[in-house]
Amino acid sequence: MFRHVVLLQWTEDATEEQRAEVARRLSGLPDAIPEVRSYQIGHDAGVNEDNYSFAVVAGFDSPEDYVVYRDHPAHLAVIEECIAPILADRAAVQYVL
Amino acid sequence: MFRHVVLLQWTEDATEEQRAEVARRLSGLPDAIPEVRSYQIGHDAGVNEDNYSFAVVAGFDSPEDYVVYRDHPAHLAVIEECIAPILADRAAVQYVL
Repeated sequence: MFRHVVLLQWTEDATEEQRAEVARRLSGLPDAIPEVRSYQIGHDAGVNEDNYSFAVVAGFDSPEDYVVYRDHPAHLAVIEECIAPILADRAAVQYVL
Repeated sequence: MFRHVVLLQWTEDATEEQRAEVARRLSGLPDAIPEVRSYQIGHDAGVNEDNYSFAVVAGFDSPEDYVVYRDHPAHLAVIEECIAPILADRAAVQYVL
């Protein structure tokens, strides 16, 4: 299994509606991109200060399948339309499980 | 399930030995901390530029169990002895699965 992890930090003026829309749109990607084997997203629970805002943990059979997801038009549309407008910071790692 | 995700960026002068020691020491934490339900760590695979260096994805039954891990002496020892000396940046999210 090849895992993609990305943590996103929203801008301070990101609205609840904008944050929810990111989750809603991302939730549709596994149906649109068959290479996605698992997909678990969520808003930070607020246990710790200084956390990022949102997490995506996705599983793939191979690095090549992850790249299909990364570059898929449905994914890029969510990034452009929903994520980029409220993105303050981003951290990502892909690793072999 | 309550998931803890942390991404770590190492300093440029972090040695391979230091990076490997972080993974080795963290790998012992599930045996030392019974609240840990799942624990999957790994070095970034190098598919993308500008990634962070290392990922930890850990599962717990509850936020309270995550806090036991967060504050456990065995965990704090790894942070102090292995992670802090080579840490350039850190991003974390905890979320409900």
